Amino acid sequence: MSDRLIIFDTTLRDGEQSPGATMTEDEKIEVARQLVKLGVDVIEAGFPAASPGDLRAVQRISREVKGVTICALARANQQDIDAAWEGVRDAEQPRIHTFIATSPIHMEYKLRKTPEQVLEAARFAVRTAKRYVSDVEFSAEDATRSDWDFLCRVFAAAIEEGATTINIPDTVGYAVPHEFAELVRYVTEHTPGIEKVTVSVHCHNDLGLATANTLAAIRVGARQAEVTINGIGERAGNTALEEVVMALHVRRDVFGGILPRVVTEQIVPTSKLVQRITGIQVQPNKAIVGANAFAHEAGIHQDGMLKHRMTYEIMTPQSVGWEASRLVLGKHSGRAGFTARLKELGYGDLSRERIEQLYQRFIDLCDRKKTVTDADIIAIVEDQLAQVPQRYTLKGWRAHSGSDGRAEAWVKLEIDGVEREASASGNGQIDALFKAIDRLVGRHCELEAFHVDAVSPGEDAQGQVTVHLRCGTQVYNGRGVATDVIEASLRAYLMALNRAALTTPVSVSGGE
Amino acid sequence: MSDRLIIFDTTLRDGEQSPGATMTEDEKIEVARQLVKLGVDVIEAGFPAASPGDLRAVQRISREVKGVTICALARANQQDIDAAWEGVRDAEQPRIHTFIATSPIHMEYKLRKTPEQVLEAARFAVRTAKRYVSDVEFSAEDATRSDWDFLCRVFAAAIEEGATTINIPDTVGYAVPHEFAELVRYVTEHTPGIEKVTVSVHCHNDLGLATANTLAAIRVGARQAEVTINGIGERAGNTALEEVVMALHVRRDVFGGILPRVVTEQIVPTSKLVQRITGIQVQPNKAIVGANAFAHEAGIHQDGMLKHRMTYEIMTPQSVGWEASRLVLGKHSGRAGFTARLKELGYGDLSRERIEQLYQRFIDLCDRKKTVTDADIIAIVEDQLAQVPQRYTLKGWRAHSGSDGRAEAWVKLEIDGVEREASASGNGQIDALFKAIDRLVGRHCELEAFHVDAVSPGEDAQGQVTVHLRCGTQVYNGRGVATDVIEASLRAYLMALNRAALTTPVSVSGGE
Repeated sequence: MSDRLIIFDTTLRDGEQSPGATMTEDEKIEVARQLVKLGVDVIEAGFPAASPGDLRAVQRISREVKGVTICALARANQQDIDAAWEGVRDAEQPRIHTFIATSPIHMEYKLRKTPEQVLEAARFAVRTAKRYVSDVEFSAEDATRSDWDFLCRVFAAAIEEGATTINIPDTVGYAVPHEFAELVRYVTEHTPGIEKVTVSVHCHNDLGLATANTLAAIRVGARQAEVTINGIGERAGNTALEEVVMALHVRRDVFGGILPRVVTEQIVPTSKLVQRITGIQVQPNKAIVGANAFAHEAGIHQDGMLKHRMTYEIMTPQSVGWEASRLVLGKHSGRAGFTARLKELGYGDLSRERIEQLYQRFIDLCDRKKTVTDADIIAIVEDQLAQVPQRYTLKGWRAHSGSDGRAEAWVKLEIDGVEREASASGNGQIDALFKAIDRLVGRHCELEAFHVDAVSPGEDAQGQVTVHLRCGTQVYNGRGVATDVIEASLRAYLMALNRAALTTPVSVSGGE
Repeated sequence: MSDRLIIFDTTLRDGEQSPGATMTEDEKIEVARQLVKLGVDVIEAGFPAASPGDLRAVQRISREVKGVTICALARANQQDIDAAWEGVRDAEQPRIHTFIATSPIHMEYKLRKTPEQVLEAARFAVRTAKRYVSDVEFSAEDATRSDWDFLCRVFAAAIEEGATTINIPDTVGYAVPHEFAELVRYVTEHTPGIEKVTVSVHCHNDLGLATANTLAAIRVGARQAEVTINGIGERAGNTALEEVVMALHVRRDVFGGILPRVVTEQIVPTSKLVQRITGIQVQPNKAIVGANAFAHEAGIHQDGMLKHRMTYEIMTPQSVGWEASRLVLGKHSGRAGFTARLKELGYGDLSRERIEQLYQRFIDLCDRKKTVTDADIIAIVEDQLAQVPQRYTLKGWRAHSGSDGRAEAWVKLEIDGVEREASASGNGQIDALFKAIDRLVGRHCELEAFHVDAVSPGEDAQGQVTVHLRCGTQVYNGRGVATDVIEASLRAYLMALNRAALTTPVSVSGGE
């Protein structure tokens, strides 16, 4: 059995199904490029049958991102598989991933199919996918609540039709490790042909056990782990890439040296990128990538740490990409110093024009802030890279409030080349500003979430604002960075509206 | 073997060791009362030898919180054990928890003791504690990196001296489930006298495996789980109470019906209280208590959900205390309606005076906000309950900023009965306001963290601001709630300063 673990990253597919995590095409490309840097083997880029936007994103990733397998998801029917092929046909290494549910509850209530019909659909799906591409993955949805023998029959049929990876998902996050390992072992022992294919697992974290279940499966022979960055995904999310990878590294002794080819130092940069793009922040006590994961507060621990790092530290923060240095830049650093730092931070491939834009923001920030840290630089780079085509451009604004009355705000936007301005009052400056913008834009979207985080410590830190706006049935996210939290909020709100404008044209006047 | 699992909650001890999670005495009492409502068996209330403040808090909890065992932590020496006893002597059911490290790396580098000296210290500690109290717990710190036979010798000695619970901690979060289960089984099979005591485990989440390790230990005989709410704690935190409890409930079939006496419907209210008090927010994809834990985004899942809830849901949101209803209150509800709702939300025991204060804030909020939800009411109640004695009282403020220049702010405070005002400009209104306050207070503390979350959806939602201020070596947290995010920030900053003023008197004039 191979001692190489295949990392199948589904941040762009299952991860994007997190409420509010919708990403633009450009953002998906950015994440996909970072996943290649991180060293994942397979990127599940989307579910092309879900929407034309999903299809387009998968196509672009297939064309632009190389050195990795690009996979598309498809239900077990002709149209889905055709769409998946349309998505990945230009990839260097294309994969189609088709699935159907095998548990009694799913077959009866969702599919309304008999087990024999499901078996036939699985055969059909793999056969159809195989006409397009040699690399075909088959998943039995809700495997952990399926009859084990039926599961083995379905997998055997999929293998007969040419599936090269068979995947065992714990769709509802129901499994516990010893039992999940028994299931995986049972499948490997009772499925004819299983020795020719890769066994994969896909776990959900509803009971906090996704990482443990994945590791338990690896111990009994699974050689592909389906994961997401920061464990984002549907409900309580998927298995976190960073936890599985670091457990295998730190506990090589018990996992027999089974390792993925992930570059562990890219874990934290990837985590931060995904947090910034999806707006889903990890909690401070999140393993490996949380702000406190390597922080030691208690006196006893600090004392121990000073005496010997390994008394309380089983891996170093550097090994997962937490910067050891917080070197400070200033205006005197000049373009050369700034460009060199960009390179060190992983932004070596920016155009000269882009660097110049960033340098101007950097100089401006140096005027406003005592110390400019790496975190500040990353924030402005990410903010700049995340910009979407602007239908609405901010031209000016003012806002005030106080203990003596309502908040007032004034905003000037350029909309389709015409400058327009509006004022509004509200319960707080944010409310007033957003109302003024709504008047100019002629549209009202519901603010579903609003978060502010300081990029770095200090009163003069940049504030990073994330908003989720629901416009009709779609949720758009927007982010903004500025030393003034009000300005950052304004930028975030406009970014979300610009995104909404990309997909749905709205009239400039009229409407509440 | 008993099929009752003892829940030992260490949110107030190990949880409070999370950076920035420091709680006031009143907050600790509030959390302890909620833990009793939740139905935990043991509350580890603090580490009295750590500071006089810790001792006072443990004493107050021991006096004021009944119907639960109150435990205090102590290193294996006379002074610590004396202090622990001072802490818990007034408790209805007092426990002393003493510990010493048993791993080679800890013994050599931290303790600088030989194994025989450690064994002797363990004996001494349990014997000393036992003179005070019958309920004594002994922990072997860093057990998972200790020699198994030495560990059994130390535990046997502790049991000989009268320990009633022996605890196996995975201090560095290093264990994996199958191996941890083997260790627990080894200890239970090779420690003379073990059948007379309760075997406990205490896991950390550095590799994302704390819940799985705890469950694996329970399967082989552990009957006490040491946990925290939301899994907060040192570094990546401790085992999350909610995950262990719900795994045992949902998977009763594989855990043989071993259950704690926890009232699962109190899980989410407890989680929210701890988030609000510590300022440590859980991520949206946190199992059970995250905002998205029960959210279904993907079309396929929603379709399945409509057809049959159990296709994607292994427990109901109601079973863990997510409110099914979002009934809306308004001014017409009156005092009676408001009081009735407070009761439903778990605030049945407030004084008439307190209810009147809250009602005034509620009426005020109704004027500012279209719909007042349960989340809004909980936010104002928690904000009100969290107030600390005010050295600095806000009397007035104004702030403005815009695209045309620096932010300006003016603040009026009452300090020790005297009204004083100051203005300042800054990079953003927050910076300007905090500078103005610093001038009045004559003190500068470093802003270590700043977060804003909307309490509910909508532009007119209340903003809840959390700040962590480092004043000298201590970190103080503050929270503020208001529809204006600037006002909420101001309130949060002042709360943190009021807390700092409680512990360290500072001069009013002078300073930066």
